[in-house]
Amino acid sequence: MRPTGRLHIGHYFGALQNWVRLQNDPSYDCLYFVADWHALTSDYADTSSIAENTIQITIDFLASGLDPAKCVLFQQSQVPEHAELHLLLSMITPLGWLERIPTYKEALENVQNKDLHTYGFLGYPTLQTADIVMYSEPGKGLIVPVGEDQVSHVEFSRELVRRFVLYYGFGVNPELFAPENRKLGRNVLFNLLDMPAADPIIPPNVELNPEQITVATAFIRQRVLEMGLSNFFEKIPPNLKPFFSFNSVLEEPQSLLTPTPRIPGLDGRKMSKSYNNAITLSESDADIRAKSKVMVTDPARKRRTDPGNPDVCPVYDWHKLFSTPEHDPGRLEWVRTGCTTAGIGCIECKSAMADNLIKWIEPVRERRLTYEQNPKRVLEILDAGSSKARESAKQTMARVRESVLGWQRKRQELSS
Amino acid sequence: MRPTGRLHIGHYFGALQNWVRLQNDPSYDCLYFVADWHALTSDYADTSSIAENTIQITIDFLASGLDPAKCVLFQQSQVPEHAELHLLLSMITPLGWLERIPTYKEALENVQNKDLHTYGFLGYPTLQTADIVMYSEPGKGLIVPVGEDQVSHVEFSRELVRRFVLYYGFGVNPELFAPENRKLGRNVLFNLLDMPAADPIIPPNVELNPEQITVATAFIRQRVLEMGLSNFFEKIPPNLKPFFSFNSVLEEPQSLLTPTPRIPGLDGRKMSKSYNNAITLSESDADIRAKSKVMVTDPARKRRTDPGNPDVCPVYDWHKLFSTPEHDPGRLEWVRTGCTTAGIGCIECKSAMADNLIKWIEPVRERRLTYEQNPKRVLEILDAGSSKARESAKQTMARVRESVLGWQRKRQELSS
Repeated sequence: MRPTGRLHIGHYFGALQNWVRLQNDPSYDCLYFVADWHALTSDYADTSSIAENTIQITIDFLASGLDPAKCVLFQQSQVPEHAELHLLLSMITPLGWLERIPTYKEALENVQNKDLHTYGFLGYPTLQTADIVMYSEPGKGLIVPVGEDQVSHVEFSRELVRRFVLYYGFGVNPELFAPENRKLGRNVLFNLLDMPAADPIIPPNVELNPEQITVATAFIRQRVLEMGLSNFFEKIPPNLKPFFSFNSVLEEPQSLLTPTPRIPGLDGRKMSKSYNNAITLSESDADIRAKSKVMVTDPARKRRTDPGNPDVCPVYDWHKLFSTPEHDPGRLEWVRTGCTTAGIGCIECKSAMADNLIKWIEPVRERRLTYEQNPKRVLEILDAGSSKARESAKQTMARVRESVLGWQRKRQELSS
Repeated sequence: MRPTGRLHIGHYFGALQNWVRLQNDPSYDCLYFVADWHALTSDYADTSSIAENTIQITIDFLASGLDPAKCVLFQQSQVPEHAELHLLLSMITPLGWLERIPTYKEALENVQNKDLHTYGFLGYPTLQTADIVMYSEPGKGLIVPVGEDQVSHVEFSRELVRRFVLYYGFGVNPELFAPENRKLGRNVLFNLLDMPAADPIIPPNVELNPEQITVATAFIRQRVLEMGLSNFFEKIPPNLKPFFSFNSVLEEPQSLLTPTPRIPGLDGRKMSKSYNNAITLSESDADIRAKSKVMVTDPARKRRTDPGNPDVCPVYDWHKLFSTPEHDPGRLEWVRTGCTTAGIGCIECKSAMADNLIKWIEPVRERRLTYEQNPKRVLEILDAGSSKARESAKQTMARVRESVLGWQRKRQELSS
C-alpha cells in the first residue's frame, strides 16, 4: 500500500481484513509493505508528507491487527534491492505492455492536478513486479492477495516473469551443436521448432564456432518464448531433454482473489479519501455519529412512512459488516423488516449501525492510539521488518544477478 | 563504455586518449566505468558475453594506459546505488524528454536485429544521468569528457538534475506563511512570481493550516521551476531571501569537449566493429599490414602516376595519428609531397603508415597481453575500483534519500 494518507474502513474490508486472515494461516509466510517509492510515482512534486504517512499507515496496519510476530512489515525504500530488480526487469519490459495497462490510461485521463506523463509513472507495473517477485522462493508458490481490480497487474507480473525466466533461466547446452549430436539436433529439434531456416543456423557438416552457437541458441530461445516453455518441454522427446535446462530463478505470482466487499462511502460512491466520504480507522465516536446521520439511504424512501429497500441502501451495507449475527443477533432482520415495512425510520437505523460501528472500531482505535503515542516503536517494527525482508531480497538478487550476468560462473572459470 | 566487444583504435583516439590525459591532470578525480547494465538495454536477449566483455574492455582500458593508481576503474553493476538513483530520477523524468532524444529515434529506426521497444532502452538517458551525477560532490564541478555526438545526452542530464534540485533541494520556510509575514509574502513575493491567484493560496486574514502551506509551497516551486532557480534568487529582494533555502544535492554535469578526431575506418566510413573496418587494440602485425594494404585511399587516384589528395585519404588521417613529428620526423611532409606529386605510390605510403601504427600499438598490445594472462588481476582492479566508487555513491545516496524522503529529519523529530 502506498503511504498517501490515513486508511479508512474501506481499506480494512477491502484488504487488511484478508491480510490479517493470511498472517494467521500457517501455510503462508506473509510480507506486507509500505510502498513509499510507489508514492513518488504520483507525488514526486511534493514529498513532504511521505515519511509521516509511512509511519501513519504502519500504525493503521498494526491497529488493524497485523502482528509483526506473525508477518513481516517493511518499508520498500529500506530494501534497495527492489530498485535493482526493477532496473533489470525494465530491460525486458516491452513498452507496449506498459502503455496498454488499463489503469495507466485511466489515470492519465482522470488525474488532473498532477502531471503523470513521467517515466516513473509509466514503469509502475514493472516496479510492482519487482516488489512481488523479490520474495520468490524457487519451487514455492507466490501469492498476491488482491481484489478483482488488481488482477490485471498481477497478470502483467506473470507475463514479465515468464519472459525473464525464458531469457535467463532457460539454458541450451552447447553440446547440442557438437558434430556427434548434429543429426539429432537438426532432424528432431528443428522440425519440432518449425525452423525452416535450420540450415544457415546449424550447417550440416561444419563445426560451429562460438558465435554461431550464440546465434543458434538465441534463435531457439525466441521460438520457445513464442510457444511457451511448458509446451516446449512437452513437445520434445526424452533423448533431447538433457540438452535443455531450466532454472526457476523467479516464481510466477498468482492472484489470490479474496472476498473483498467493496464498501460504499457515506454518499454511496466508492469510499475514498478524495471523495471525503470515508470513516478513518481513528474516527471519533462523535464524528462517526455525525457522519452516519447524513449518510445517503435508499433515495426512493422520501418520507418516514415510505417503505424502503435495504438492498440499495449503503447503511444496510454497513450493517452487514458491523451488525453481524455474531455481534448483534437479530439486528439485520430488524433492519430488513423495519425498512421494508416502514416500521423503523432511517435515523433509528443509522443510529443502530453507528453503535455497532463504534463497538467495532473501539479496539482498532485503541491499538492505534497505543502506537500513535509510541512512534519510535513503530519505526523499530518497520526497521526490523525491513532487515528481515532484505535478507530474502539478497538471496533472490544473488540468483537473479547470476542468471543475468553469470559472474559467479565467470569468477570460478577465471580462478581455475 | 558498454562492454559489447573489443575496443579498437577508434575508441582510443575518440575517448581513451583523453581519459588518460585527465587521469594525469591533478585537478581531476577520475572515475571510469564499464557500463554493464547499459549493455542490457540492447543486449538483454543474449547476455552470455557481457561478463567476458567486461573483463576484455577493462583490459583495453589498462592497455590504453589507464592506471588504477591514478583513476578509479569500476563496474556499474557492482555499485547497485546506480539503480536506486535511476529509480528516483525516473519519477521526475518527463516521458517526452526521453522520446525526443535524437539518438533514441535513430536507434529505433536503424537497429534491425534487436527489439529496442523496451522500457529499459527508453530510460537509457535517465540511467546515464544517474551514472554521472552519482559522483557529484557539492560545490565541486562535475565534468563528463565526451565527443560532440554525446553533448545532447549530457544536456539531458543537466536538465534532469536541475529539475531534481528544484524539487528536492529548494526549500520554502513555512514561516513565510505566518501571520506576521503575511503582508511581506503577499505583496512582494506574489507580485514577483506573477501569481494572480494569490488570494486563495495565501488568504489575507486567516491562519494557514499545514495542508494550505503545502499547496502554497508546491505553487511557488512550480513557478520557480518555470522561471529558473537563479532567476528567482536574482529577482527576490534581500529581506525575502531568508525564507528560501537551497541545498545542492546533485551537481549539474558539464560536458568537457575533448579534441577527439573521428578516425575513419579501413573503408573510409566511421570506424566500427559492425562495419568490420577496425583495427583492434590487440591486432597482430600481420593483420595490421594485411588490413592496411586494402585500405581505401583517395578514390580519384586511380593509377600510380595520378597525383593524389591526402586531405580526402583515410591513410593520411591515420598518418596524422601515428606518424607524428615526434615519432617519425618528416614523414607527414613526405606523404603530402609524395602523394600530391605522384612521387610515392599508395602501397609505399600505406606500408610506412603500418610501420608506425605497429610501433604505436606494440606497447599497448604488450600491456594487453600481460593482463590477458592474468585476468584475476583485472578482476581485482575492478573489484577494488568498484568498492571505492561505492563509497562515493553511498555518500551521494545519503544526501539524495534525505532530500527526497527526509527520514533523518523525521527520525530526529520522533526521538526528541
